[in-house]
Amino acid sequence: MTSGSFVWPVRVYIEDTDAGGIVFYANYLRFMERARTEFIRSLGFSRLETVDLDAQFVVHSLALQYHSPARLDDEVAVSAHIVKLGRTYMEFEQNITRGAKAELLVSGRVKVACIDKVSFKPRPIPGNLASALQKGINV
Amino acid sequence: MTSGSFVWPVRVYIEDTDAGGIVFYANYLRFMERARTEFIRSLGFSRLETVDLDAQFVVHSLALQYHSPARLDDEVAVSAHIVKLGRTYMEFEQNITRGAKAELLVSGRVKVACIDKVSFKPRPIPGNLASALQKGINV
Amino acid sequence: MTSGSFVWPVRVYIEDTDAGGIVFYANYLRFMERARTEFIRSLGFSRLETVDLDAQFVVHSLALQYHSPARLDDEVAVSAHIVKLGRTYMEFEQNITRGAKAELLVSGRVKVACIDKVSFKPRPIPGNLASALQKGINV
Amino acid sequence: MTSGSFVWPVRVYIEDTDAGGIVFYANYLRFMERARTEFIRSLGFSRLETVDLDAQFVVHSLALQYHSPARLDDEVAVSAHIVKLGRTYMEFEQNITRGAKAELLVSGRVKVACIDKVSFKPRPIPGNLASALQKGINV
Repeated sequence: MTSGSFVWPVRVYIEDTDAGGIVFYANYLRFMERARTEFIRSLGFSRLETVDLDAQFVVHSLALQYHSPARLDDEVAVSAHIVKLGRTYMEFEQNITRGAKAELLVSGRVKVACIDKVSFKPRPIPGNLASALQKGINV
Repeated sequence: MTSGSFVWPVRVYIEDTDAGGIVFYANYLRFMERARTEFIRSLGFSRLETVDLDAQFVVHSLALQYHSPARLDDEVAVSAHIVKLGRTYMEFEQNITRGAKAELLVSGRVKVACIDKVSFKPRPIPGNLASALQKGINV
Repeated sequence: MTSGSFVWPVRVYIEDTDAGGIVFYANYLRFMERARTEFIRSLGFSRLETVDLDAQFVVHSLALQYHSPARLDDEVAVSAHIVKLGRTYMEFEQNITRGAKAELLVSGRVKVACIDKVSFKPRPIPGNLASALQKGINV
Repeated sequence: MTSGSFVWPVRVYIEDTDAGGIVFYANYLRFMERARTEFIRSLGFSRLETVDLDAQFVVHSLALQYHSPARLDDEVAVSAHIVKLGRTYMEFEQNITRGAKAELLVSGRVKVACIDKVSFKPRPIPGNLASALQKGINV
């Protein structure tokens, strides 16, 4: 009932790190957004297309656990699995791992809501995207 | 049993927004970190001092709810309350609100762990900071 | 022929630093943009108003010299002086200094162009803003 | 006398854009740093190695022209050519282009200085890196 294992590689650059020598905690959310975007793109939808409809996607809530820090020059793998697909939202499970042994750095859930671009109220995910997501989940 | 209401004002600049016309979801974590830093500073500890000891503070986990978006030029208020003070961690409740009516934009909890700078293992919060935090909570 | 000395204070947070222990070079541009925005605001124009007209302001070019790095917890002063006001652009001289002795950290020039929001072609700075800028310069 | 055409592809994500619907002007510097880092890596030096020596690389100065904005989902090409290699610095020419016709979005020069990690004074580029850069230039 979950989507297959979409994984997006991300290289850690100096811009991502902080004076503690590790990736700044907010920047993992940038990595996770890139993975979600590339997952959607892999289904045939560029982020721009989905943004340009009268539908807009916004993060509704998230919960993250930070297990171990990523460092400069690390190449990490960011997963994006849909664990629940609602009429107006999708809930992702996302992990960030490092190396061949997939050391877990960050894990979490991100719920993305579909809203009307003008009223900012929840609305159904556009049909063609919803179908593609449904197929992706059933694979 | 919770700390008083430390609140830090943050202005939203163009750097904080994204093409959706609202603050990018990761950037609220930057705002929240500023409020936590200023709360610690208000107790007499600059961030640098705490970083320069053999203790380092890292975010252990967080959970956020996004209620309503902040926009360009908004002046928002970011709170930082300690709801639980452990031997090796502090757990913050943080809200981001806008305007005189304190419209709730983002709410959440952030658990910050104290770790040893070299071993990266949990260690007690340095005594002088722990005392100051304890006093802050009992106010 | 230059504007008075508008100066905006900026605190350096962990988000601004990198693994080198200093402010990441791109982030000074964020500081400079904040100072320009607050300078415009001090003339009675919020950034949003100016963005919402059919005029939009974009950076045309810039040249920066990095003299000495800013570090975590530094409170720096960011200036924004208009050195040239054209019909379709304004050119700023901006310095970032630290401390009572105004140690120079970064200096540079930033040329901001006014463009049409739809065609993206240069257009005159809106009249009321142009007048206010002119007055600001002649102070 | 210039290096060959090292080019690094960069995808524009929502994190890179601002409320104007285009890439925020500071973020092109992040893209350029990624290209310089990957150029150095292509010579056999990871960024971390070079940072971990007693040498550190910092941006000394830069000059950029913004020709046309990048937008959400654009895939841009970021070049990094060394136009001048000094004993203590390297000067890069960097262009950001889009599409098969290489539409020029941003062009500029970035001078990167080698400094001593402790004294922060200029020092020669480490010999093995200097040799590799010299070879890269003569290709």
